[in-house]
Amino acid sequence: MTDTLKVTKISKSKIDQVDFSNLAFGTVFTDHMFVCEYKNGAWQTPEILPYGPLQMDPSAKVFHYGQAVFEGMKAYKDDNGDVFMFRPEENFNRINKSSERLAMPAFDKAYFFDGLNTLLNLDKDWIKPGESNSLYIRPFVIATENGVSASPATEYKFIIICAPAQAYYSGEVRVLFADHYSRSADGGVGFAKAAGNYAAQFYPTELAKEKGYNQVVWTDANTHEYLEEAGTMNVFFRVNDTLLTAPTNDRILDGITRKSLIELAKSQGINVEVRPVRVSEIVEAAENGSLKEMFGAGTAAVISPISGFTHKDKQFDLPKPEDAYSTKLKKQLTELQANRAEDPFGWRYEVPVLEV
Amino acid sequence: MTDTLKVTKISKSKIDQVDFSNLAFGTVFTDHMFVCEYKNGAWQTPEILPYGPLQMDPSAKVFHYGQAVFEGMKAYKDDNGDVFMFRPEENFNRINKSSERLAMPAFDKAYFFDGLNTLLNLDKDWIKPGESNSLYIRPFVIATENGVSASPATEYKFIIICAPAQAYYSGEVRVLFADHYSRSADGGVGFAKAAGNYAAQFYPTELAKEKGYNQVVWTDANTHEYLEEAGTMNVFFRVNDTLLTAPTNDRILDGITRKSLIELAKSQGINVEVRPVRVSEIVEAAENGSLKEMFGAGTAAVISPISGFTHKDKQFDLPKPEDAYSTKLKKQLTELQANRAEDPFGWRYEVPVLEV
Repeated sequence: MTDTLKVTKISKSKIDQVDFSNLAFGTVFTDHMFVCEYKNGAWQTPEILPYGPLQMDPSAKVFHYGQAVFEGMKAYKDDNGDVFMFRPEENFNRINKSSERLAMPAFDKAYFFDGLNTLLNLDKDWIKPGESNSLYIRPFVIATENGVSASPATEYKFIIICAPAQAYYSGEVRVLFADHYSRSADGGVGFAKAAGNYAAQFYPTELAKEKGYNQVVWTDANTHEYLEEAGTMNVFFRVNDTLLTAPTNDRILDGITRKSLIELAKSQGINVEVRPVRVSEIVEAAENGSLKEMFGAGTAAVISPISGFTHKDKQFDLPKPEDAYSTKLKKQLTELQANRAEDPFGWRYEVPVLEV
Repeated sequence: MTDTLKVTKISKSKIDQVDFSNLAFGTVFTDHMFVCEYKNGAWQTPEILPYGPLQMDPSAKVFHYGQAVFEGMKAYKDDNGDVFMFRPEENFNRINKSSERLAMPAFDKAYFFDGLNTLLNLDKDWIKPGESNSLYIRPFVIATENGVSASPATEYKFIIICAPAQAYYSGEVRVLFADHYSRSADGGVGFAKAAGNYAAQFYPTELAKEKGYNQVVWTDANTHEYLEEAGTMNVFFRVNDTLLTAPTNDRILDGITRKSLIELAKSQGINVEVRPVRVSEIVEAAENGSLKEMFGAGTAAVISPISGFTHKDKQFDLPKPEDAYSTKLKKQLTELQANRAEDPFGWRYEVPVLEV
């Protein structure tokens, strides 16, 4: 911990009130939060505070102009009580890329890691060991300057909050390929974890849910001929023994689970093609039986197998292969993440034990 | 005022602390605000409260998923002390269209107008008569439900805040035609006054500002061949004696000033063409001298004349015609708005005098 981090501890933990065997995702938060204010052109002394409400002026720019970005990360505890994260530097770099695109200031790396490590040490009892447990970590940045004029704010808050999580079982996931609504434009902010990207997806996703689908797989806004991502997950397709996924661009999030899976799959000798994926080739592969699997990849669920998809009212069911890549890769990745397997890639980050 | 509006008045007005001759736009707010909460599937009893901060949980969905929409309106006081608004029903309808696209609940019309009228009566001393004065009114809706899971919130706040404003002099406005960045996608949320649309424009607009431009005129994301809008204004082009403006679609805001100007210009016998406007035809018209004017239209500035534009490093200066449509239409519209001229269109709305 640097001497530039100010810590105010809670007087009494609320952990006893929490039923860890029955947690709704992202609704129960730990005792502390990390907050760092930006003003006068600089990040001020970061603080760890008891988790609690923010006082916001009704004219705060985040409410009006949507300057808000976030990240999603997880921490795991092994049976020795050691705490691990997965490639946190990638999240740090990405939140700054998101911020840059929204005209928000880059955060300080030492503040980020000192704050995160101290927070995880203070709230370490909230991280439970065991396969089905993790701590979901949500760093985010919001524009706090007051005033309803449409220009970048000069004041922000960088905040980290943490929510204990159980294994995310997404159930049977059926998806709809978008052929009318779009998630992002060329030259837009689709690659950023910008708050507005999510609100924009809710309505078309609700329409899809009414028809019995869990998610929309977005296609390019120009032609709807290329498959992009699912909004909260990148998407992989297995055609025969080849894994396909779209390349990242300014419309598609550069997912950390996505790129880790590409590397992991390649290391197993799986043929991976990162290239534009046509809707028509996936439909054709489903029709001729060469489409073996489809799955989403993201921090929350790691891998979500997709059981079927619909494109322009044509429904397709996917087989459930016994040797599914999704099952194998998910097991390998989660074991690596939680220190139950070797880490030949150097992806695991051990949270240092600190006096707090 | 209906009996369903709960009013809590301030004990002492802060109006004496305000220098009305020196107001930065959107930074000073009146004594009261209107707040209505949505929960359990319904809008609760609306309230007028002293203007003050909101208590927000750090996990409130607006901070993470950008469910936030807004409107901009103005109130004017004539020399008799009567207060007028301009087509407020259009703003009411539009905020609900914006909300629908972001999977947010529609607001109640009686709550809106009762709240607005009561608020304007309570804070009527903040509306100054005279040509250069108005009250800027900002209705907005934010997702207040706690929890970091990416789905539409079940709790919201509909809020109205008001800021006294002086005539908005935008100065010499030079614009850049977008040829790389984009504002919105087909099938996206560009037509909505969604908070995220504004954050997405800030970075490219800052880049343009560094090069000496005040605003970006957005083009279609697919080809950058068609002129769309300027993000906070719709855009009009006068070629010889014809006014051109792009049709609204799901990428372009259906501006109330825009549609009023179209009707007003037509009523004066001006030829108005609402059709896709090619970048190439405007460049050509600038080159051959037939481009007489270009201006932005929006609530804040009503009309902002544009003095020049740049497309792909080619700069064009616009003439300053003595009989400019922009000057004439702005004068007519502002006089109609402030009850200094007849209103053949029925656009003006007189705020009823209420016992408050």
